Amino acid sequence: MELLKEKILKEGRVIGEHILKVDHFLNHQLDVSLLNAIGRAFKERFGGEEVTKILTAEVSGIAIAAITAQYFDVPVVFARKTSSFNLDKETYEGSVYSYTKQQLYKFRVSRHYLPENEKVLIIDDFLANGEAIKGLCEIVASARATLVGAGVVIEKHFQGGGNKLREKGLNVQALVSIASLTKGQITFLQ
Amino acid sequence: MELLKEKILKEGRVIGEHILKVDHFLNHQLDVSLLNAIGRAFKERFGGEEVTKILTAEVSGIAIAAITAQYFDVPVVFARKTSSFNLDKETYEGSVYSYTKQQLYKFRVSRHYLPENEKVLIIDDFLANGEAIKGLCEIVASARATLVGAGVVIEKHFQGGGNKLREKGLNVQALVSIASLTKGQITFLQ
Repeated sequence: MELLKEKILKEGRVIGEHILKVDHFLNHQLDVSLLNAIGRAFKERFGGEEVTKILTAEVSGIAIAAITAQYFDVPVVFARKTSSFNLDKETYEGSVYSYTKQQLYKFRVSRHYLPENEKVLIIDDFLANGEAIKGLCEIVASARATLVGAGVVIEKHFQGGGNKLREKGLNVQALVSIASLTKGQITFLQ
Repeated sequence: MELLKEKILKEGRVIGEHILKVDHFLNHQLDVSLLNAIGRAFKERFGGEEVTKILTAEVSGIAIAAITAQYFDVPVVFARKTSSFNLDKETYEGSVYSYTKQQLYKFRVSRHYLPENEKVLIIDDFLANGEAIKGLCEIVASARATLVGAGVVIEKHFQGGGNKLREKGLNVQALVSIASLTKGQITFLQ
């Protein structure tokens, strides 16, 4: 997705060898026109599939999923990260290990919003080591719903999570894949 | 907004005398068609004003703000609740007292995304005691930006926060106002 690559090169900031900050348009400020282009791109990638619900995780996935859902004409459900929130007690859970924070946490979705007959497309902002997507897949599996695939805006391909998920048979579509962030330089996968 | 009232009566759940759960369409699952109707309604309410940015707070405001921003053709910035997130160090802060959790926390927005010349419309899901909107107003004031007003989807009018803000001169627009939740009954303000 050329528009997104340009945006990343112009406004992204590399921190160390692993972090790409895109607060300018995706993670703190939201460029809503760009989100619409992202939504259309996901529709192109998954347009051949039947999708009845989009599943994402708080916080950064929410805006992307909501705008994208307009192109699929389906509802979104977002997994909550904490147990403290006033969720229904009946939830499906997925485990996510955060390498950044070195701790395991849970994603939770109320059972009401993932009945067995749903055809679920997972949408998220980043795919690095694949932990967040894996946690969302666990939720879909617990719900015995059908997993259509996972669409991510930016894959940090060098961290290997995307290919691990693909090897398990998941249809993972990244709108942009990054081969390396070495020496402050953003190199896209060819 | 009649559509929203119908939705609340049909799918909202009253807990105690103060809590209205709308997880079915606004706070956990997102009804994206309804969010579009909400966005159009905010545009009607604030269409006469110049707005250059929409400000909201994570988590529940994000989807509403992103969909609404399409009708204003402006970017969104969402305030972060925790300090742990990898935000720029240069932030504007607002304080929010949570009556539910009985603790004070901070909203933070990077200074990059609120320059002085912005004309800011605040959007949020609920307005109860007004603490969240007050915290967002503090951020706009710190940035010396212009505060256009605040649009909320559901005002719990009986908790008084909306009128406190209106008395201070803020243009607060609620799409639906609730007069009482007594005895499990949802009564709208006439």
